[in-house]
This record gives sequence, structure tokens and C-alpha cells, in this order.
Amino acid sequence: GTAEPAAPPVVSDALVAPAGTAATWRSTFRVEREQVVLLDQRRLPDELVEVVCVSGAEVAQAFRESVVRGAPLLGQLAACGLALTAERSILSSPFARRAILFGTANALRNAAPTAAPVRNAMDRMLARLVAVGDVAADGASVAAALREEADAIVGEATGAHARLAAHGAMLFASDPGTAAVETLRILTIGSTGELAGGQVGTALAIVRAICDDGRDVQVLVAETRPWLAGARLVAWELAQAGIGCTLVGDGAASGMLARGEVNAVLVGAESIAGNGDIAGDPGCYGLAVVAGRHAIPFVVAAPLAAVDHQAADGEALAADPRPAFELLSFAGRRIAPEGTAALNPSVDIVPASLVSAIVTEAGTFREIGRASCRERV
Amino acid sequence: GTAEPAAPPVVSDALVAPAGTAATWRSTFRVEREQVVLLDQRRLPDELVEVVCVSGAEVAQAFRESVVRGAPLLGQLAACGLALTAERSILSSPFARRAILFGTANALRNAAPTAAPVRNAMDRMLARLVAVGDVAADGASVAAALREEADAIVGEATGAHARLAAHGAMLFASDPGTAAVETLRILTIGSTGELAGGQVGTALAIVRAICDDGRDVQVLVAETRPWLAGARLVAWELAQAGIGCTLVGDGAASGMLARGEVNAVLVGAESIAGNGDIAGDPGCYGLAVVAGRHAIPFVVAAPLAAVDHQAADGEALAADPRPAFELLSFAGRRIAPEGTAALNPSVDIVPASLVSAIVTEAGTFREIGRASCRERV
Repeated sequence: GTAEPAAPPVVSDALVAPAGTAATWRSTFRVEREQVVLLDQRRLPDELVEVVCVSGAEVAQAFRESVVRGAPLLGQLAACGLALTAERSILSSPFARRAILFGTANALRNAAPTAAPVRNAMDRMLARLVAVGDVAADGASVAAALREEADAIVGEATGAHARLAAHGAMLFASDPGTAAVETLRILTIGSTGELAGGQVGTALAIVRAICDDGRDVQVLVAETRPWLAGARLVAWELAQAGIGCTLVGDGAASGMLARGEVNAVLVGAESIAGNGDIAGDPGCYGLAVVAGRHAIPFVVAAPLAAVDHQAADGEALAADPRPAFELLSFAGRRIAPEGTAALNPSVDIVPASLVSAIVTEAGTFREIGRASCRERV
Repeated sequence: GTAEPAAPPVVSDALVAPAGTAATWRSTFRVEREQVVLLDQRRLPDELVEVVCVSGAEVAQAFRESVVRGAPLLGQLAACGLALTAERSILSSPFARRAILFGTANALRNAAPTAAPVRNAMDRMLARLVAVGDVAADGASVAAALREEADAIVGEATGAHARLAAHGAMLFASDPGTAAVETLRILTIGSTGELAGGQVGTALAIVRAICDDGRDVQVLVAETRPWLAGARLVAWELAQAGIGCTLVGDGAASGMLARGEVNAVLVGAESIAGNGDIAGDPGCYGLAVVAGRHAIPFVVAAPLAAVDHQAADGEALAADPRPAFELLSFAGRRIAPEGTAALNPSVDIVPASLVSAIVTEAGTFREIGRASCRERV
């Protein structure tokens, strides 16, 4: 990690438009025939502004500039982006179109290197391309097939998140350590609501489902440096939903576990390895270790789309650090002296041995590495 | 923790003056006959500005407004402040002066509730007051005695920190786990240099002593939310000393321990209980737990003035949280939505069982709770 210049320029301002107010805000993104419109997460909670992308290349650029974040969301957007590129290359020759689509899929993968859902979505889109006849089919057929596949990916993700939320609520209602407490105190880190999931979300969707069940929940939100996803995004989403929360520093959160102020830690995942190791937000590892020390469940919520089928274990989930400027500056202002270096890891790897349960749309996997939730608490 | 308004107003601006540039900056504070002049830590590293205090009450106000932080520094400043109040009450009646001095000592203690050095300095100053004759002596004699005692406290602290730094350097040179490595990678959290110590400092002074010995040291600095003491102060002090450092998020630091990127964690302490439990910066607890898991030494550096003689164990070191606005705003700008609550603990309690060694001016105590540094690594 070395010192770096200030943040890169934002996505072309010509593409930016006000998205209305929080009261009129409806969704993290919307797919239109010739564009996908994204809510700019960098400007929340101060401003609701939309960014328009007309191709997969522009979606990849939006990933790189952190217009949007959240692995489950990025998988859906990558699919939509590739469908846009197919739409725009209807008139290209079959071989040119094939090269464009494979190249764009690669660019989308590389723009979100830690997000397994992006890799899985690209694999699925390219398999569909091959199935429809990558050099045999006409451009309109390819575009229609990829649009259909992208729509399916978005629709399935939405359904998967809703089922995941229900499974998670059941886990918290049935686990002896979390079912009996009067006020359920859940600590979360990272952005795992609608903003990160497109619709519904993952870990935060479970929190909302538990609240919907009428339980008294105290939501403790780690601010999640350096992007402040907890302070900026999660607190905002919860406020929209009429759910209060209490912010806590990432370092200070461990002390709350020690003082018995937390019943469960609930996080999302960028990716999951075959052995149950996960890649999550920086800060997850320390929380998992401290939760283990205090016999507090450490629960991961992620759709099956986050499973990295190439990764045997957590080591294969490691990725390059993110840019240093994210840590060295805030809201465009430098906070550390000129010349200060920074190390800004993209993910924390949490070994399966520290994970109590993984909640997916297919159910909750309780036997990960630590004893099951039920047995342990 | 509930939501709170923005930061309180600064100490009277009439008392604020430019302190020169980094190149001309000489000390964290200087004592003059009728005032003590403080470098305003809130404005670093952007501006070097001094704040003038003419009484103990103004020093207490400077503590409350976080003009200065760092337990070892505050102990010295509290003594200087009480001496100023004695100077200003020479003409008061003996009983009025006694009430003023005891009241001011209380105000100084309450303005820095977690800093054992402040309590110890006040005990010592009031004992001197009683010894010189709290209601029998004339005002000038009381003022002279308290000035002498305050000067002694400052002078002894400076000497103590220098010896502490030497003992710490010896520890790192002799411990098998840290002596043999080519590049010694030390992770630190909190402000523990000259800015926190007055002169010399504690944990950061050890780092400087090791660098002075010619060893290759990589200093990893946790940014230390919410005050960003690491990003703003430690990185600046190290830059002044010509020592490079790498900033890391408080939550991300644990992952570095897991990946083998750190040889030792080195922190300061606000206070130390009789059993060796310590109160340190929020974030210390999680780092201590993770360091223990990976057999990495967790070393505390603090002068004996930080020993709380009333506290049998860490539970007695606990204190009220700090104001929520520190977490809800960043560099003067609100980051979380209106109405968001925050919990901002003042300290983390680290049990002695997680501490490898405590370095003081009287030597290094290796048998705390974890096995000694030497045996363990």
C-alpha cells in the first residue's frame, strides 16, 4: 500500500440526474430497455442521485468508481450490463459480437474481483450465449436471450433474498441463544440491505424480517470503514424502514461483545469457498474471533450465488487491496498528512471454523466449522 | 447512546494563536508563569494552532473540548493548571483558596475521567498543598509550592517516558519473536507519541527508540476512530521524525495479524488496574484477542503514573461513553442520517490475561496474564 492521489473523477456527470427524495425513492436500480439506472451510493445519505449506464463497459466503470457496491447487487447489474452490450451490438458481425461480449464479461469480472456473484452471473450469461449460438445466431436473438437471462438472474436473486430472509428469521427465532432474549441485539457490519442486494438484501433483510415478526430488535451497526457503509448506507436504509439503529466504531464493536451487549453478529459475504470459509468486509475477521471467544453466534447471510465454485478454501478468496485514498481521505478531504501510506484490504477472510451458520435461500447451514448454533449456545 | 448535536464550540477563539509551521513546532505544550500554551490537537494535521489556558478551570475546559488528549499529557497539564489557579488565588483568604484548589482539582479529574495520571497528579498536588499548610500558609507560599510540584511532575514524566522508551526498545531487541526478524512490523493504535505524552511519549516513543537503534521498522498505524488519532496525529508525528508509516482501518487491522503481517501490537493505556488489566483506546480489546490467537505479543507501554491505585481490576476502570457526535460526524461533517444514535465508548478494557508485557519507566513486567513474552513466542 502506498500513498495515492485523491479519488478518481466520478462517472460522466452528464449521466447523473436527481433521483427524487428519500420519500419517493423506490429501488437501488431499475432496468430499462436501453439503460440501467443506478442510485449513486457514494452520495448517500446526503443526496439521492442516479447514474445511468448504457452498456456493460459503463456498468464496469460504475463498479470501479464505487457508484454501487454489494456483491449480490453487482452480480445482477453485471448481467444487466452484458445484456445492454448485446443490445448495442445487434448489428455487429457474429465474431465481433462474440469478442465484445466475452471481453465485456471479463471487464465486469475484473471490476468486482471479490464478488463471486459477478463471476457466477458472467458464467451463466456466457453459457446462455453459447447455448443460443454465439457465432450462429443473429444479433437480435442473442440480445433477446441475454436480456431474458439477465431478467431471470435479477428475478431469481430477488426471490432468493426473500427466502434467505425468512430462513434467517427462523434461525433467530429457534436458536436458544437468540430466541429467548427479550430485546434481540444484533451487530452487523457492511452494507447488506436493499442497496447491496438490489431488492430485499441479505443480512439486513433478516433484521427487517425479524422486526416484521414484531420482535424487539436493537440493531447495532458498525460504521464499516473506510467506505462508511454502515454509517452512510445501513443507517439510512433502516431509517427509511422506520427501524432505529445505534452506530458503533469498527474497533469499538469488539468491546460490546465482551461486555455482553450483543446476542449475535450477522454479516454478509462477498464470496464463500467450498469449505465454508468466507470473504467479508474488513472487520469481519476480528468480530468472528471475538464472537467465538464469547460464545456469541457469528452468522453469515449470503445467497448461493456467492459460492465461488473454483475456491477450495479462504486462501483462494483473497484479493488485491483497494485504493489507499479511500482510507486517506474523507468526503474529498485528505485526513492524514501528505505522503502517508495506507493498506486498504478489499476483504477479510473468515475461516469456517469461526462461522456458526451460513443462511442461504436454500436454508441455513449450521454445521460449518464451529459447532452448530443450536449446540453451541 | 443517543443522537447528539454537532461538536461543542471551541475554546474561546480570543485565546487561539498560530503556533508556527511543522518545521518550527517544538512541543506539545509549554508552561509560562501565568499561562500554559497547548498545541490544539483537533486541528492537526491541517493547522498548527495554540490554545492558551490561564487557570485550572480553563485547562479542564480544554480537556472537555478535546483540545488535547493523551492520559500521560493530561496528568502533567492538570498539575500545571492547578498551579496556575494557585497563582491566581494568592490574594484569596486561606479557606477560600483551599476550596478553590480542591474544587479545581475535582473539575480537572472529572474532565478526564479515564486518565489515571490526572487523578494521581491531583492527589499529589493536594498532598503538597496540605503539606505546605493548606489554611496556614500564605498565598504566595502555596503558589510557589504547587508550581514546584507541577514542575516536578512534568520533569519526572519526561524522564519516565525516556526510560520507558529505552526499556521498550530492549524488550523488542531481546524477545525472540521480535529480535530476529529483519523488518520489525509493529502495529499501534491510539495517540502515544509526544502529543499524548507531553515530551517523548510512550508506545510511539518505543518505536522511535527502535528506529534510532538503526533497526528496520515498519510502523502500522490503526486510524483509531472516532477521533482519528492515528491518521491525524500519529502519522503526523512520525512524518516530523522522518519515519514512514502505513495507515490501516481499525477493523482491517485484525486481518493483518491473521495474515502474519505484524510481529507485535504495541499500545498505550489510560489506566492500569492492580491486577494488570488495562483501559486503552477502543479497538485495543479486539486486537488483544486476535493477537493472542495468533501468538503475537500484545505489549502495553505506560508510565507508572497510569496505575490506578483504587482499581483492583479492569471492571473498576470502566467509564461513561464519550459524546455520540464524535462518531456521527467526520472531519466536521455529519456522516450518518439525522436521528441515528451512536455508542462511543471511552475505553476498551483489556484483561491482563491478554497482555504479554507492560513496559514502564521502572522496567518491563513480563508476567502479566499471558505467559511472558519470552516464553510464549
